[in-house]
Amino acid sequence: MSLALALGRRGQGRTAPNPAVGCVIVQGTRIIGRGWTQPGGRPHAETEALAQAGDKAAGATAYVTLEPCAHHGKTPPCADALVAAGIARVVIATGDTDPRVDGAGIAILQAAGIDVTTGICEDEAQADHAGFLMRTELGRPFVTLKLASSFDGRIATGTGESQWITGPMARRHVHAMRARHDAVMVGGGTARHDDPALTVRGMGDITQPARIVVSRRIDVPLMSKLATTAREVPVVLCHGRDADPMLQRTWRDLGATLLPCATRGTQLDPQDILQKLGDHGLTRVFSEGGSALAASLIEADLVDELVGFTAGLAIGAEGLPNIGALGLGSLEAAQRYRLKSVTRIGDDICHIWNRR
Amino acid sequence: MSLALALGRRGQGRTAPNPAVGCVIVQGTRIIGRGWTQPGGRPHAETEALAQAGDKAAGATAYVTLEPCAHHGKTPPCADALVAAGIARVVIATGDTDPRVDGAGIAILQAAGIDVTTGICEDEAQADHAGFLMRTELGRPFVTLKLASSFDGRIATGTGESQWITGPMARRHVHAMRARHDAVMVGGGTARHDDPALTVRGMGDITQPARIVVSRRIDVPLMSKLATTAREVPVVLCHGRDADPMLQRTWRDLGATLLPCATRGTQLDPQDILQKLGDHGLTRVFSEGGSALAASLIEADLVDELVGFTAGLAIGAEGLPNIGALGLGSLEAAQRYRLKSVTRIGDDICHIWNRR
Repeated sequence: MSLALALGRRGQGRTAPNPAVGCVIVQGTRIIGRGWTQPGGRPHAETEALAQAGDKAAGATAYVTLEPCAHHGKTPPCADALVAAGIARVVIATGDTDPRVDGAGIAILQAAGIDVTTGICEDEAQADHAGFLMRTELGRPFVTLKLASSFDGRIATGTGESQWITGPMARRHVHAMRARHDAVMVGGGTARHDDPALTVRGMGDITQPARIVVSRRIDVPLMSKLATTAREVPVVLCHGRDADPMLQRTWRDLGATLLPCATRGTQLDPQDILQKLGDHGLTRVFSEGGSALAASLIEADLVDELVGFTAGLAIGAEGLPNIGALGLGSLEAAQRYRLKSVTRIGDDICHIWNRR
Repeated sequence: MSLALALGRRGQGRTAPNPAVGCVIVQGTRIIGRGWTQPGGRPHAETEALAQAGDKAAGATAYVTLEPCAHHGKTPPCADALVAAGIARVVIATGDTDPRVDGAGIAILQAAGIDVTTGICEDEAQADHAGFLMRTELGRPFVTLKLASSFDGRIATGTGESQWITGPMARRHVHAMRARHDAVMVGGGTARHDDPALTVRGMGDITQPARIVVSRRIDVPLMSKLATTAREVPVVLCHGRDADPMLQRTWRDLGATLLPCATRGTQLDPQDILQKLGDHGLTRVFSEGGSALAASLIEADLVDELVGFTAGLAIGAEGLPNIGALGLGSLEAAQRYRLKSVTRIGDDICHIWNRR
């Protein structure tokens, strides 16, 4: 199952709205098929693995990281395919909560006399499929918030200088993290100030994640990298319903997807932004700030994974904070996260925290 | 030599102004003597190890983490003692730059026909003796700056709540770190606001480090824990020459040591503070903030080791920053530190950085 999980992860960031599943088929002590969900979400992992196994699949055991699908979509159900191939036993890491599956896949297998075991490496599988499961259950994508800061939690100097706080190895690590998400998201201030490309670079010829900008009034320059490359790599604009209609049309003409979102006070409602992104088919979103968007996500308790890169330099209190104002009443009211891992990356540290 | 270094470290924080030396005496393949500088700085490590070895020291090899002393202080020179014991070979990690020694210890040994090897584990020894060497060479103690902060670099909420950001294991770790320093140092704001005891607790019956408060006008309450316990554990006040003379006398009567320091602008000059602390005999100072003192030490490039404890919670931009204003002109001008280690301590992370 560990191998199936590792294979499944290869698809992360490329299969949305489908889950990035892994499948291994074993005959006796030999692996006869390995598969993972292909870019775009099809073929599914089971289809891939069964194709490799061919005739040898009869009587074999299939390890799958998520319950095989039971519904006819653009491909026939995987549960039927496993039955047809004569698989004798299916080991499943975790169930699929999609209402079209939700036990129906297991029922098909069992009805055909296949021995089914579930719950093997369930925690790892639920972590890997968190984006897919969250969208199925809550309608919103899994949110990773990444902040690269100085020792004192600053993302830029008082004059706005931010390149570079962390070193080249940490920055490369960020590109690898972007590639495992369906989309990279920043606030309007960051898009305006840094003019970022938000693409994955130096990782070979891969499917680029979409680029999301959260900006109530869409005040991002029309000559920005994002605007001028919107036809090459998708750009999604989450904006207020009160954004200038002319501007909306111009961005649509540039190739961007526009998602009007609800406002809460003077700001876009982060809960609604994520619902709209879920509706748009995204399962894993990688937010890279700035301060205001980070604060808005944290305040609404919408951060599932918090990734910190910390460099050994001091910028001082005039610098731009990594997290904006939260309006905390007391220390007890602060959002707390559980440490998942901490490692050295070049001259910096990378610490990853999860929702408690 | 690694054993000698480990033994030497046992004395850290208890031997100032003397160095915390370790010594191991080996006869053939047997360790016949182990010693380290005793609390208060005497007896020296060599004296301790020679006493254990007794008659067996003749013809043996002594491993010492610092060049044996050559001068008559309150004890006779260790170099003479090694000669008198009939030691055949002395292995020294690093030289003593104290002008009263500085090669004279080695010269005594060599003149007596002892085989001397130097530079074994020299980097580790120089790190361990950094406080003693720095005071000898620059007149100031080694400075460790420890800051325990939230994910976003805050040491308290906007309303000043700071207990607790990090967990019990991290706080215990801090007590162990305090114990390895000659003194714990805070700014006047922290002393006033938190009313800290600054003692080492939960580490058994140990010599307590002195407690230093940096406060230009000595505006620390006379009913504070520091004031009322100044006779039990030393309190050192670094203040401006313009501090109220009555207040100075009151604190002296309470048992505190007063060190008048130069000012630079409206603040105490951190360089002069450290010179005065060096003159006072301190070799290793552990500063625990607050923001203003931290910024003042960093700005003057007086931080030798930067220790960060980071907890997985977000306080937001209204919170008190761990480092105050630095007046940086550009990112390039920022002080950068080199990562020494990063570890998980309970639910928090501990990252240690050194001067580049």
